[in-house]
Amino acid sequence: MQLEKTLRQIQLPDEYAMRAAQARQDTLTKPRGSLGRLEKLSVQLAGIMANPMPTVERKVVIVMAADHGVTCEGVSAYPSEVTPQMVLNFLHGGAAINVLARQAEARVVVVDMGLAVEVQDTSGKLIRRRIGAGTANLAQGPAMTREQAEESIQSGIEVAQTEISKGADILATGDMGIGNTTSAAAIACALMNESPEKIAGRGTGLDETGLNKKISVIARALEVNQPNANDAQDVLAKVGGFEIGGLAGVMLAAAANRKPILVDGFISTAAAMLAVALAPVARNYMIAAHVSQERSHRLMLEWLGLNPLLDLNMRLGEGTGAVLAFHLIEASTRILREMATFSEAGVSDKE
Amino acid sequence: MQLEKTLRQIQLPDEYAMRAAQARQDTLTKPRGSLGRLEKLSVQLAGIMANPMPTVERKVVIVMAADHGVTCEGVSAYPSEVTPQMVLNFLHGGAAINVLARQAEARVVVVDMGLAVEVQDTSGKLIRRRIGAGTANLAQGPAMTREQAEESIQSGIEVAQTEISKGADILATGDMGIGNTTSAAAIACALMNESPEKIAGRGTGLDETGLNKKISVIARALEVNQPNANDAQDVLAKVGGFEIGGLAGVMLAAAANRKPILVDGFISTAAAMLAVALAPVARNYMIAAHVSQERSHRLMLEWLGLNPLLDLNMRLGEGTGAVLAFHLIEASTRILREMATFSEAGVSDKE
Repeated sequence: MQLEKTLRQIQLPDEYAMRAAQARQDTLTKPRGSLGRLEKLSVQLAGIMANPMPTVERKVVIVMAADHGVTCEGVSAYPSEVTPQMVLNFLHGGAAINVLARQAEARVVVVDMGLAVEVQDTSGKLIRRRIGAGTANLAQGPAMTREQAEESIQSGIEVAQTEISKGADILATGDMGIGNTTSAAAIACALMNESPEKIAGRGTGLDETGLNKKISVIARALEVNQPNANDAQDVLAKVGGFEIGGLAGVMLAAAANRKPILVDGFISTAAAMLAVALAPVARNYMIAAHVSQERSHRLMLEWLGLNPLLDLNMRLGEGTGAVLAFHLIEASTRILREMATFSEAGVSDKE
Repeated sequence: MQLEKTLRQIQLPDEYAMRAAQARQDTLTKPRGSLGRLEKLSVQLAGIMANPMPTVERKVVIVMAADHGVTCEGVSAYPSEVTPQMVLNFLHGGAAINVLARQAEARVVVVDMGLAVEVQDTSGKLIRRRIGAGTANLAQGPAMTREQAEESIQSGIEVAQTEISKGADILATGDMGIGNTTSAAAIACALMNESPEKIAGRGTGLDETGLNKKISVIARALEVNQPNANDAQDVLAKVGGFEIGGLAGVMLAAAANRKPILVDGFISTAAAMLAVALAPVARNYMIAAHVSQERSHRLMLEWLGLNPLLDLNMRLGEGTGAVLAFHLIEASTRILREMATFSEAGVSDKE
């Protein structure tokens, strides 16, 4: 099984490269530690890439889309026809993720992980890894079979492997799927053993009534399905989504290949939780790009032990937060590589 | 007087352009408000530039350097010879600000506002606006005369005017000056009527003993000089620095010319406080790039009513935080300009 093989490949970051990167940071013309998280990031990247002077030139954001049967419960402010419409928008370059990826010089890879209806792709750019025509309604039974859950992770691994073999230095995750905050919240409830009241948020813009409905739908999903918190594939199968399983696979493949993975917002973080439940060491390869406006996102990041880079009150998904963070990642590597040392610049060190 | 003229030129942001930018944001293919601060930034920039579709292509960071007589009190972890050494490092491109500015495609303008000893500039790039050979020791009397205070602001205005007339769309501020966190903290104490215990921080890396010494030096400076909180020039003259006055001038010129100004960290924020004390409307043109590790920086930003974009635990100055924020500013303008609308993309709006 490729999943088993991928999980076995995930090793701890390279301590030697991390020590070398830290040692170099301490010789650069600035008070030690004064670049804060940029310094820490450069050391983390060195460990991930087993390179004391890492570069992240080729950036890819993998945006996975799928439909969710639970939308028939009225858990989203938008109709589910928006999922394929936005996929076409991604392919035509008009969505926020396209704009921000152009700025960051990142490639956008769009994957149909299971739209309800196939889209007509005239661009030839859509990757089709359809696990099904949308998930089943998780409020009434499992969202997918256990085989589909494994297949979705597997597909994510393969999509990421392809990008890595084409030369990607760093990956970022993004999502599209009307209804997917309901699924992501249910995953978080299951893995964290928290209540839907604490975890569910307003998604794309629910009002108070909508939020209450969403909470009761998640409560029903947990009651009906009884996901097993000690079995990530069971959680994914019962209350997950095809794109969420796929994104978990992307993260596992990044970790297995020693590539940093930028985790976007609420949906991507639920996928990260599944990935870490399958392979705890994968956490070391993750960088939380931002904390979103979705109220429990910070709690989920804390569960993962990740500290977000940005806090811009965003709640769009698509990988928009992750792609914004590319600039900070690149800054951290350039600092390590390009700054002069105290001796090179003839600057006096601390007294 | 050019200072008087500059102050009179500062007008409120353009409401019409702000409304137009907000209206466009609301037609773009994303839930309204889902890009959070990026959306708000684009609206602010529209108002600043009186342009419903603002661009910020030509970016300039103005880094002002000067020496501080107060260093003889032992208030810094680094010797004051580091000020000219770092100025040379800026001119040779080896400092953090150079690295981050290259990444952001921003021009670095280095200004000698009053180093103790002139540096030999073989690059021909140093701008000399020397108000004096370092300030006097503010713990024993005024740091500079009232005329020098005015001249420093005036010089900052002229440096910024030159950059704006050469085509700068957006300015950022940066500083270098061993001892300048002592001066900046004293300015904040004076304008906010707060105690040195509450405001002074560890600067480039003081230990507990060093911090206590710094607190007592600031307390002495306030006691000896009795700066008048209602007279920003008096505060600058008594406890300020030449680069801090210059940076206040840069900010006033940006506001007078309807250009956004990215305020860097602790030192730049003290300069922003002086600028706002001289012209309260200038605040509308300011964007706080980041909150630094210096402990009272957030309080100062709150006094200004500014909400920082980044929080990366940095404390270097030089404009490093401001230049990192250029990426977010540019992202906000690109979103407004490049994203498809619901009707262009054929995407269904909220139900």
